[in-house]
Amino acid sequence: MSTAPIDSPGHAFAGGAAYVGGRYVPMAQATISVLDWGFTRSDAVYDVVHVFRGGFFRLDDHLDRFFQSMQARRLAPPEGRAGIEEILHRCVALAGLRDSYVAMVASRGRPAVFGSRRPADCANHLIAYAIPWIDVIPPAVQERGAHLWIGGTPRVSDASVDPTVKNYQWSDLTSGLLEAHDNGFDTAVLCDADGFVTEGPGFNIFIVKDGRVLTPDRGSLHGVTRRSVLELCEELGLPAEVAPVPRDVLEDADEVFAATTAGGVMPISRVGGRILGNDRPGPVSLRLKEFYWRKHSEGWRQTPVRYDLAG
Amino acid sequence: MSTAPIDSPGHAFAGGAAYVGGRYVPMAQATISVLDWGFTRSDAVYDVVHVFRGGFFRLDDHLDRFFQSMQARRLAPPEGRAGIEEILHRCVALAGLRDSYVAMVASRGRPAVFGSRRPADCANHLIAYAIPWIDVIPPAVQERGAHLWIGGTPRVSDASVDPTVKNYQWSDLTSGLLEAHDNGFDTAVLCDADGFVTEGPGFNIFIVKDGRVLTPDRGSLHGVTRRSVLELCEELGLPAEVAPVPRDVLEDADEVFAATTAGGVMPISRVGGRILGNDRPGPVSLRLKEFYWRKHSEGWRQTPVRYDLAG
Repeated sequence: MSTAPIDSPGHAFAGGAAYVGGRYVPMAQATISVLDWGFTRSDAVYDVVHVFRGGFFRLDDHLDRFFQSMQARRLAPPEGRAGIEEILHRCVALAGLRDSYVAMVASRGRPAVFGSRRPADCANHLIAYAIPWIDVIPPAVQERGAHLWIGGTPRVSDASVDPTVKNYQWSDLTSGLLEAHDNGFDTAVLCDADGFVTEGPGFNIFIVKDGRVLTPDRGSLHGVTRRSVLELCEELGLPAEVAPVPRDVLEDADEVFAATTAGGVMPISRVGGRILGNDRPGPVSLRLKEFYWRKHSEGWRQTPVRYDLAG
Repeated sequence: MSTAPIDSPGHAFAGGAAYVGGRYVPMAQATISVLDWGFTRSDAVYDVVHVFRGGFFRLDDHLDRFFQSMQARRLAPPEGRAGIEEILHRCVALAGLRDSYVAMVASRGRPAVFGSRRPADCANHLIAYAIPWIDVIPPAVQERGAHLWIGGTPRVSDASVDPTVKNYQWSDLTSGLLEAHDNGFDTAVLCDADGFVTEGPGFNIFIVKDGRVLTPDRGSLHGVTRRSVLELCEELGLPAEVAPVPRDVLEDADEVFAATTAGGVMPISRVGGRILGNDRPGPVSLRLKEFYWRKHSEGWRQTPVRYDLAG
């Protein structure tokens, strides 16, 4: 996907537009205090929705999940759902982007009483921004198929940190990513302490085996793209299931692909030392990728951006 | 402890002084980008040293640990050790504080290449600041003895996130804290998935049983105050040990106290439903607390702040 500022490439919001501290600012001014608990305690939740050719994809689903995440962590910025929705529209409109990566973040903020250690004393606040599109895996790598490393660091357990609450605590995922790069791989997936496959840094994982599509039932975000893939499988008549995926099932897969808002369906051609198929994206993965973007072109679950809000 | 701006209460750095982006700024201007991976991936390590009556306490030990944390996460801001040490002195000097909470943070930063997902592409950067003293547990609560809740959320495992690398991923600790406050307690400690006691939000835990002092061997930061307490125990002839501490040993303790840079030795008078001793700080805890601060007054391991650097 390309980024396309609408008509004024030199405008103030060319690099993206943000909403922080209740104001709209260019990305260079989108900052938070180093004392914000969103930073010093990673006490924040977030969500990311993408804009494709002028329309949000599954905006309501992302807002639903964002509110579930906020509720789980007792975060309640003052804007409310309708307010947040309008802010997202306005960020994209101000940035003048037809294709965009759009983030919403709820942060704990700071205590009104200096020195308080009580989360309840903090003024929660909303951050939102629209920036040019980012692919989690670069398009050229998606073309050849990404090389996936199985990280040696176990995924943080679901009991300690709920993976369905979208959060910034990526240390275990970052460890996997560093290992992957050390070993010449593009990205990583983690297994949990019991040896079941979970997710990677910013994406869900799918495997295809004997014509069946599987995605892990644990240690994973309930990804909106994951849900889209499961729905598309149904439409295509492909049997698909959310299930436990032991590590050896991943290693023995016919095909593997990643799924994320920031990239869609991204085929994988190598898992650890193993080369899948002919060292290129598999047929089921490619079929789902093509179908995913074709549905986008047809306006599937699109909400047109209100570009008039930039005025 | 009180905060005491040296001689000009109206000066620009009265609320504290920070070093961010290579410049010294008042705390209100100490910010990071909402795109910084230190925020969006909690990809940062930190340390906190305190200044007592014009002197850093165990500055070298904190710098040693900060460098160990940075090395473990492959973070390398450009300033170097001597540079960082001078920056800490200068922050305190600019803030004009005789007693201060002084933080140093290394953040991953942002990729120089837009859209890169490689930590190695990021320009790491240092944040430091000196602000007025903060007690993790308010002094009045320390006087009566803090009420400690044993959280139901298991501490993230050491295999997933190394607790000796001081980090901001506090979600499990925050969950415990929310539970504690819901139940009318002051703060919380977490057990790991195997039922062994670990640490609380910002402090190590100690128990006293039959004249012996114990602190957990797992799930815990190697606290500088923890080390100080162990050294003071040796000086006082109290047997002390780093060892596994099952939950029931905590619940059956004669005394319990917390240890942290931001508060020192902080007695606890209740653990869950159990009232310790006479519902007040125990004698060993008080003896260690008194000894800890007396040693401070005597200049133990103090490095005088170079207030001349404010000029």
